[in-house]
Amino acid sequence: MSSLNFTNILTHTVEELAEPESLKGLFHQHREGKPLPSSKALEEIIDISRTIIFPGYFGKSSVNTRTIRYHIGVNIERLYKLLTEQIMAGLCFSCQDCPEADGMKCYGKAQQTAIKLISKLPEIRKILATDVTAAYNGDPAAVNMGEVISCYPVIKAITNYRIAHELLTLGVPLIPRIITEMAHSETGIDIHPGAQIGHHFTIDHGTGVVIGATCIIGNNVKLYQGVTLGAKSFPLDDNGNPIKGIARHPILEDNVIVYSNATILGRITIGEGSVVGANIWVTEDLRPNSKKFKKE
Amino acid sequence: MSSLNFTNILTHTVEELAEPESLKGLFHQHREGKPLPSSKALEEIIDISRTIIFPGYFGKSSVNTRTIRYHIGVNIERLYKLLTEQIMAGLCFSCQDCPEADGMKCYGKAQQTAIKLISKLPEIRKILATDVTAAYNGDPAAVNMGEVISCYPVIKAITNYRIAHELLTLGVPLIPRIITEMAHSETGIDIHPGAQIGHHFTIDHGTGVVIGATCIIGNNVKLYQGVTLGAKSFPLDDNGNPIKGIARHPILEDNVIVYSNATILGRITIGEGSVVGANIWVTEDLRPNSKKFKKE
Amino acid sequence: MSSLNFTNILTHTVEELAEPESLKGLFHQHREGKPLPSSKALEEIIDISRTIIFPGYFGKSSVNTRTIRYHIGVNIERLYKLLTEQIMAGLCFSCQDCPEADGMKCYGKAQQTAIKLISKLPEIRKILATDVTAAYNGDPAAVNMGEVISCYPVIKAITNYRIAHELLTLGVPLIPRIITEMAHSETGIDIHPGAQIGHHFTIDHGTGVVIGATCIIGNNVKLYQGVTLGAKSFPLDDNGNPIKGIARHPILEDNVIVYSNATILGRITIGEGSVVGANIWVTEDLRPNSKKFKKE
Amino acid sequence: MSSLNFTNILTHTVEELAEPESLKGLFHQHREGKPLPSSKALEEIIDISRTIIFPGYFGKSSVNTRTIRYHIGVNIERLYKLLTEQIMAGLCFSCQDCPEADGMKCYGKAQQTAIKLISKLPEIRKILATDVTAAYNGDPAAVNMGEVISCYPVIKAITNYRIAHELLTLGVPLIPRIITEMAHSETGIDIHPGAQIGHHFTIDHGTGVVIGATCIIGNNVKLYQGVTLGAKSFPLDDNGNPIKGIARHPILEDNVIVYSNATILGRITIGEGSVVGANIWVTEDLRPNSKKFKKE
Amino acid sequence: MSSLNFTNILTHTVEELAEPESLKGLFHQHREGKPLPSSKALEEIIDISRTIIFPGYFGKSSVNTRTIRYHIGVNIERLYKLLTEQIMAGLCFSCQDCPEADGMKCYGKAQQTAIKLISKLPEIRKILATDVTAAYNGDPAAVNMGEVISCYPVIKAITNYRIAHELLTLGVPLIPRIITEMAHSETGIDIHPGAQIGHHFTIDHGTGVVIGATCIIGNNVKLYQGVTLGAKSFPLDDNGNPIKGIARHPILEDNVIVYSNATILGRITIGEGSVVGANIWVTEDLRPNSKKFKKE
Amino acid sequence: MSSLNFTNILTHTVEELAEPESLKGLFHQHREGKPLPSSKALEEIIDISRTIIFPGYFGKSSVNTRTIRYHIGVNIERLYKLLTEQIMAGLCFSCQDCPEADGMKCYGKAQQTAIKLISKLPEIRKILATDVTAAYNGDPAAVNMGEVISCYPVIKAITNYRIAHELLTLGVPLIPRIITEMAHSETGIDIHPGAQIGHHFTIDHGTGVVIGATCIIGNNVKLYQGVTLGAKSFPLDDNGNPIKGIARHPILEDNVIVYSNATILGRITIGEGSVVGANIWVTEDLRPNSKKFKKE
Repeated sequence: MSSLNFTNILTHTVEELAEPESLKGLFHQHREGKPLPSSKALEEIIDISRTIIFPGYFGKSSVNTRTIRYHIGVNIERLYKLLTEQIMAGLCFSCQDCPEADGMKCYGKAQQTAIKLISKLPEIRKILATDVTAAYNGDPAAVNMGEVISCYPVIKAITNYRIAHELLTLGVPLIPRIITEMAHSETGIDIHPGAQIGHHFTIDHGTGVVIGATCIIGNNVKLYQGVTLGAKSFPLDDNGNPIKGIARHPILEDNVIVYSNATILGRITIGEGSVVGANIWVTEDLRPNSKKFKKE
Repeated sequence: MSSLNFTNILTHTVEELAEPESLKGLFHQHREGKPLPSSKALEEIIDISRTIIFPGYFGKSSVNTRTIRYHIGVNIERLYKLLTEQIMAGLCFSCQDCPEADGMKCYGKAQQTAIKLISKLPEIRKILATDVTAAYNGDPAAVNMGEVISCYPVIKAITNYRIAHELLTLGVPLIPRIITEMAHSETGIDIHPGAQIGHHFTIDHGTGVVIGATCIIGNNVKLYQGVTLGAKSFPLDDNGNPIKGIARHPILEDNVIVYSNATILGRITIGEGSVVGANIWVTEDLRPNSKKFKKE
Repeated sequence: MSSLNFTNILTHTVEELAEPESLKGLFHQHREGKPLPSSKALEEIIDISRTIIFPGYFGKSSVNTRTIRYHIGVNIERLYKLLTEQIMAGLCFSCQDCPEADGMKCYGKAQQTAIKLISKLPEIRKILATDVTAAYNGDPAAVNMGEVISCYPVIKAITNYRIAHELLTLGVPLIPRIITEMAHSETGIDIHPGAQIGHHFTIDHGTGVVIGATCIIGNNVKLYQGVTLGAKSFPLDDNGNPIKGIARHPILEDNVIVYSNATILGRITIGEGSVVGANIWVTEDLRPNSKKFKKE
Repeated sequence: MSSLNFTNILTHTVEELAEPESLKGLFHQHREGKPLPSSKALEEIIDISRTIIFPGYFGKSSVNTRTIRYHIGVNIERLYKLLTEQIMAGLCFSCQDCPEADGMKCYGKAQQTAIKLISKLPEIRKILATDVTAAYNGDPAAVNMGEVISCYPVIKAITNYRIAHELLTLGVPLIPRIITEMAHSETGIDIHPGAQIGHHFTIDHGTGVVIGATCIIGNNVKLYQGVTLGAKSFPLDDNGNPIKGIARHPILEDNVIVYSNATILGRITIGEGSVVGANIWVTEDLRPNSKKFKKE
Repeated sequence: MSSLNFTNILTHTVEELAEPESLKGLFHQHREGKPLPSSKALEEIIDISRTIIFPGYFGKSSVNTRTIRYHIGVNIERLYKLLTEQIMAGLCFSCQDCPEADGMKCYGKAQQTAIKLISKLPEIRKILATDVTAAYNGDPAAVNMGEVISCYPVIKAITNYRIAHELLTLGVPLIPRIITEMAHSETGIDIHPGAQIGHHFTIDHGTGVVIGATCIIGNNVKLYQGVTLGAKSFPLDDNGNPIKGIARHPILEDNVIVYSNATILGRITIGEGSVVGANIWVTEDLRPNSKKFKKE
Repeated sequence: MSSLNFTNILTHTVEELAEPESLKGLFHQHREGKPLPSSKALEEIIDISRTIIFPGYFGKSSVNTRTIRYHIGVNIERLYKLLTEQIMAGLCFSCQDCPEADGMKCYGKAQQTAIKLISKLPEIRKILATDVTAAYNGDPAAVNMGEVISCYPVIKAITNYRIAHELLTLGVPLIPRIITEMAHSETGIDIHPGAQIGHHFTIDHGTGVVIGATCIIGNNVKLYQGVTLGAKSFPLDDNGNPIKGIARHPILEDNVIVYSNATILGRITIGEGSVVGANIWVTEDLRPNSKKFKKE
């Protein structure tokens, strides 16, 4: 058999791969000069947000009460620049056919949205403080709050979620989902930015947890690893495609605990104070204070 | 108690750790001048492949219909260089005792294999396009195809798998497994490169999914997070070691759906159109169109 | 509606975020000049340890029997420097109020602890060699030991655990947990550094495995993906907070196998040679050689 | 003597350094969202230009006659992006008070200027080819043209100059000077972008050469290290400041040679074919074919 | 001829190179745990200093009057950390035999010295402002002050010198010389940190300028490229070695101009307002307002 | 005037720039799979050589008498790998038309040459030790030998030269010149690798020094900044091109001193013990012990 010649294959393969038909639906034409969504920029956004929210735990420099203003000031300014660009990237990604003249309008919107997110940071820190407390109180192995902040996966996942949820609420496309997927990749915890989650929320260990887009979770809720809060099934439209935007994930009221690998599916309500046991499968409402365990 | 002296401990520990007996089976002697498997190079291989297959979604530059040829051409040339080296690294890793004279022969083989993989790229893109469609159609939360391509873990995992599977089929050792383990680490989805998977395949969320080496999966199959397609048990040889190469993982026929955390074990067949419920344990064949759910 | 002005929001938000009340429990004041825990340094520590323990598999250069002493010598010296700094960082993190004069004492302790860990490396390699054997023997898909060392997630997780466990035993705060969480993020396997694990230990696939802080695991134990060895519940003190340091996780005796997604909770004993089936929930002792499978 | 406290000094020094008076003339307020001149971007611009002009000598990948189009295409596209940004940075740097509305106009101008420069690249390559020939022919130590292109300082300096001169001619502020200063730092050859230089120009060794802003240099001119083509003195305005824009540097006609460390000052003309000896000081016109050497 | 074997040569050469005799005077034994002089750290020190002194010209972020305090604060804190380490490195470099107990004392001295330098920054900026003015006024080609600050080599060289001179005055060994050599490498201007230089100092072009260790330069002095202010000869001690610390370089009084490639040697005085022509050689005092040009 | 369209210009310019005629003499076609000369690799080669020759002064880690063997061993192994590749790159660069079959022969030659250079390192260190002594003794401003090794430009330049000269002697094309040009760029000292230079050689300050390819320099020679040892003129062949390989630069016998900016041209001999004054121009032999100064 004769050997293949690279240059021939190269020329041929380039033609095949550049054929418009072969590219249908897989080719994103970005408008020149507009920013692209960048996982590197988004990672820096998350790193800076963590540094602002938990001073002295993240970031490379030591901070004290007199110098903290300098650090927060510089970090917020950098955050503003990065956020504006990435929000702009999200806006452009979704409206490829907008007239050129709208460029400045979009940029203004991106700036305003970035400012709004920044002005929410104190509030985001306040609720994350309750999550840290919940993680610490919920784990006898936790030595101190510092350990929780430094290395518990739930803190990473919930920080990304709370920022992404805020961005989604502010109308930013694509970017929120990339941010929660970054945490998903890092921690194995998959929280959709559309979910609504109360204060004092925690997840132990976390790998395999799934929280769907239309979940509503109350305060003081605790999940363990492998818990799914998913959709049971979803109605299809006339073309057989799933209908978007229907509430299809569970509601967990305050003070619910769900043990490891439990699966809760559909728009059902797990009543206040209920406990759902490990490896269990729940597809119907539970009344408040239910204890649902496996019979084995 | 007297304190330990670093230099003494250093000298002593170096001797202990360099002792041939202590190194048995843990020491890889690489032939000088031959490439080493490099996770950095393999990551670049995957990045470039994604850039070629989904133009404009990955990579740092914007592309349009007139410049796309330039980009694909340069990327394929770089891919060829990296692939040749890493395939060579895989070949060398597995045959440490080959005579020096075979060096050029192996290098030629590595080049030919790289060319073959490159010539398969249009086909790989075609089948990945069906996977993107399946992911989009299977998730009501998906806003558009762009979002699916940009951030759904399944797209990362299945892209790595389809490339790794092709390399394995072309006879490349070690490298395919490293490539799927990279996706495993990034997404929590563990697909063995030896598995066979049809078109329009998707996995929702994905963390914890395991697809074993001898699985055969038909078209239009959908899995949810935590699903195991594993071996039930495996026969041992006379030395008590597992016998390699026996078909021991499930066959899923076309249009099967398996819900979260279900475990399907052994060389059984899940018949066409069947649905396997969440948290269930299946070790026997299911006839076509079965619905198997937990009784609770 | 008038648009927001960034500089105003910036000044205002900096003030809010620098307010002492808002920082309570979330602010870590590090003593100037002391090293900070650094995930980059810890990653290098793990990389170097892997390079020393499995020569030729990790690291960028090829080694042979005559040059191996040079490589191990240089790597141990670098390891000593990095370990001393990170152990010091761990010590400082936990005792923020120690008098300045204790700085040198702590540094001496960090050096001694680093030396102790280094002197344990030959022993750590010996037990990891048994883990490699167990992984190879336990997986019919494993082609050779080299493949296991290069890319099996369990080898990454167990290497980090064995180093972290040693550091915890030597009294180092925080750092051991960060090291196991690094492996958790990379592999989805969450082993608390406090757990005790015998030789010839392996985990197949691994995503979602949780091994709690007070687990005791014998020799020749094998786990599959998604297995939880967790706490059932834990006693609270008078303030409603969990009491720390109580043995609350399972004991697995020698030769136990636990299949995927099984959940074993509480201070129970799984007797020698027992097999626990997939997706099962165990909260009571199992006698030696039990076979516990799901009834479905 | 009591020791200084860092935090006090910090606070105090920040205030001093932020005082408007102290900042007068030293503080550049950049308009938010506009690109900054970036030496990193400018270095990439020069690297890419060299790669395009001398294919196969610079850049990391090998090129051949069939793949060269791909490489040039991708490089020009990248060059366009970088040039547009840096030209924009130069424009913004010089007009800090322009109305916001002019932002888009400037950006359009930056794009048009970048396109113009790119369309000049074939011409720039043509004249640089003559400079390479001149350097090769002028140095008996030159082994081949490849060596000249790869490592002769004059090629670096003249490439930067020819690009910078073109940009200056196109009306770009600041950026041209930064580009020639980059070559000055790398080679010790200081050519002002405003100078006019004919074809087949070369400089041997080069360190210390200075070519002033209003120099006019003919074809086939050769300089040696340490040669100054400078201004003798310059008229001051009523405030005692030098008057800008007056022709004040020498004119060298075709085929002139100037030996090392010679100094030629003022708007004088060195006639065609003249030779100026080493370490000499010339402040008056030389007729064609003069030989001016030191009397010692 | 038989070919050489690398491993043999390696072993042999290592032994030769590790022989104490061969290392005499070339081997620097650094005390473990002490910082090493680091050109990377020193480059960052210079970059940060430039960023603080000329806000908005260097550094990657835009600054405005309201955010400038944040930026200066963060930069000074980083500068303090880096300076303390590098000053400590300089101190350790010079006293290799100091008792261990002196470690903390040296560190305290390093901190105090860093603080002193930082408190001098406003003064350093003030005098550099005069140098910028002198460079701008002295060059008809200068378009604006911004161009001078951004890209004139003299500004780089004089900034490094003024910082290094301050450090030398504060008693820091080695580090000042490394800092001026960094500027020497970048600009070709070699100013010894021991020289004394008044305000409104400038150098045009600069390559080849040498200013010796005991030079004293008044205010409003201007040099051109290639000027040497050197020693004529120096007395030897009884062993034939040069005697250190003797004043041996020229004194230039206020308002002196020295044209390109002039060489001024020995402890002579160039009187106020004098002008020294290009390529001239001066070894004797010049009275005030002398005009010394070459006769040719 | 209508604005230019980038895509049109792009396509057009790519075609122009890819035209074979336009590429003549400027296009280097590298054989696929062969290493390219890499300034990054060559910089690492120089860094490692400095680290081996002056232990503890360069490189990032501290060394002591017990660990020095480990460091030298690892460094030499890395040096061998890099040198082999870069020597191979040099060989390939110069013989583009060699038959494929010669690839392995060239590689073997590259390895042998690398080994030979490595075996010369002890000798290179020995002569560099004399250069360090000469620099220290020759400069009253030198505080200690450590300062000379750490930051004197002459040490950088002479180290690169001595390595490059050895490589040239071993028959390596191109690479030696790139190495001396790297030092030229860093220090302003331009020594051709072909020059022959005795022991105890030093250059003060150094910027602007030029030492031509056929220079012969004895022992104990000292040069100052700006000194040129150049060719006066060179005979042309029948085509008007310079004839290569003719001795055309000066011979400096032992104990010669040449002061700043002196220019010595042609194949003349400066007799033993002579002193050449600053800014002087010498084109005829000087008898031993001459003192040649400027008359002014």
